[in-house]
Amino acid sequence: MSRAWTLTARPQGTPTFENFALIDVDLPPLADGQIRVRNRWLSVDPYMRGRMNDLKSYVPPFQIGQAMEGGAIGEVVESRAVGFAPGDKVQHMLGWRDEAVLDATGAQKLPDLDVEEQAFLGQLGMPGMTAWFGLLDVAEAREGDIVFVSAAAGAVGSTVVQIAKAKGMTVIGSAGGADKCSLVRSLGADAAIDYKEPGAPLVKKLADAAPNGIDVYFDNVGSDHLDAALAVARNHARFALCGMIDIYNNLGPTELRYLARAIQARIKLQGFIVSDFWSRAGEFYHGMSALLQNGNLRRQETVHEGLEAMPEAFLALFAGGNTGKMLVRP
Amino acid sequence: MSRAWTLTARPQGTPTFENFALIDVDLPPLADGQIRVRNRWLSVDPYMRGRMNDLKSYVPPFQIGQAMEGGAIGEVVESRAVGFAPGDKVQHMLGWRDEAVLDATGAQKLPDLDVEEQAFLGQLGMPGMTAWFGLLDVAEAREGDIVFVSAAAGAVGSTVVQIAKAKGMTVIGSAGGADKCSLVRSLGADAAIDYKEPGAPLVKKLADAAPNGIDVYFDNVGSDHLDAALAVARNHARFALCGMIDIYNNLGPTELRYLARAIQARIKLQGFIVSDFWSRAGEFYHGMSALLQNGNLRRQETVHEGLEAMPEAFLALFAGGNTGKMLVRP
Repeated sequence: MSRAWTLTARPQGTPTFENFALIDVDLPPLADGQIRVRNRWLSVDPYMRGRMNDLKSYVPPFQIGQAMEGGAIGEVVESRAVGFAPGDKVQHMLGWRDEAVLDATGAQKLPDLDVEEQAFLGQLGMPGMTAWFGLLDVAEAREGDIVFVSAAAGAVGSTVVQIAKAKGMTVIGSAGGADKCSLVRSLGADAAIDYKEPGAPLVKKLADAAPNGIDVYFDNVGSDHLDAALAVARNHARFALCGMIDIYNNLGPTELRYLARAIQARIKLQGFIVSDFWSRAGEFYHGMSALLQNGNLRRQETVHEGLEAMPEAFLALFAGGNTGKMLVRP
Repeated sequence: MSRAWTLTARPQGTPTFENFALIDVDLPPLADGQIRVRNRWLSVDPYMRGRMNDLKSYVPPFQIGQAMEGGAIGEVVESRAVGFAPGDKVQHMLGWRDEAVLDATGAQKLPDLDVEEQAFLGQLGMPGMTAWFGLLDVAEAREGDIVFVSAAAGAVGSTVVQIAKAKGMTVIGSAGGADKCSLVRSLGADAAIDYKEPGAPLVKKLADAAPNGIDVYFDNVGSDHLDAALAVARNHARFALCGMIDIYNNLGPTELRYLARAIQARIKLQGFIVSDFWSRAGEFYHGMSALLQNGNLRRQETVHEGLEAMPEAFLALFAGGNTGKMLVRP
């Protein structure tokens, strides 16, 4: 028997605790090729909000009454799959629960890198790959570029800051609150913008922090951050559109005052999904290993304890309640 | 003595006749390397609205009280420049006036193609180059693609339709009114959307006209057209952002409801300016000559007579008053 979270109803706008319920799920006896995994870390990610809507998207929607899914790190406790033995640490997609039975083809053993296992849900997992390929491939960021990254204290953003600094770029990060801004600076950012601080509008704060403009914008936020980036972008700037946390729960339109600058400054805005880069995971592990060994990477985590805390951790994402990667230890 | 149009004041929002005045301009005696040109055709283009603002942009602003500028075709009437003789037909940038003295380095003799001279302000000039490079280079449109182009009865849009059809693409064009839509279909478009017709919102009209989505959007309009294109774009669609006539005069923000689809569908939005492609004009003339010879090009023009009509022709651009290239014959 496993305990798992399910959706009781699809949220309209921002989800609430009432949208979630903990259910018991039968664990079937293992078939050939299957493993049973005891989850040790559950990933909590903004993209999961999209799966709560009943809309065609790049990942299928969660089904009401069925166990939800998401990234997880666990330990194999029973195996009928060649190459997997009890005690193996694996990564898989049956999160939001304490224990899972799955085909071993849906699990990857953790790479042999000298870091704590939960790093493979963050800096060395999907958020890290998102940062790596979004910055270096989608936005084509190069040494000497001026890079603006929003949600720079988050799992993806904090990794973007560190990769960019290690590669010789100037980095401006935005985050909400003085503590997060201190963190962003401590990761090496040349400037941090507190978007929650009263006073000047964001576009003014960014123009002050980037008096020469920006070459690259890594967008985790959308709306006013995207608009400010359009306002100060230099000619031929590249924007990697990674996430728009501001509009996941927002039923209204995005308002852009500086969109015409995309033409004037010949800006490229490119949306991307990290799963398009799975086949290049080797490049990512190779590059990140070098940064790890050179001491260029610091990891930030916000951990909630207990499976029961999963909805609380998830809802906190949209209230700026995490620094770095949001995790639950079931 | 030349007569020329000047700005009396910078317009706020949509320009009015009061923003313009006709002035007399002294024509200096020719210096070495200069020519005097009698203008025969004046170009009237939406981008000129941008030059009326006192803002840094890709072309410098018009100065109050000084003669305005723009594309023109004229005949050399006096020359002190090697290679230019009276009777030569030239293209240059001192439009908005009847006669001009300029350095011959700022004039190009018309290419030797068998078309009327005013075509070099339209299909075989800047609007044509905009269509060619925007479609084939910026949006990377290829045979088999489904292409949506807005303002498809305009100078740029009508050329996009014809190039795309000649290259084996499916084309959906939008235009305002039944007559313009008939024109768009007569140019070969597979479907034409009348955005002015009451009833369904544009996004619904586009979804009906493009049930399989679109691979390419050539944007001349911005706002609701851009939003509708985001809504129906297929994975890895490419948008060439060429002009946003809806926002040139609009002081409010652009509202986009479907911006998050840029991420989900990995859309590339790329702004561009035709002048970045001047150095590749040879490619353009070569490609367009082939289309001309194969009978793939039809030209549409709206001509206003007399230098006095210049502001009227310009203001009509923003009220949908042109079919194809807007021209004034001074």
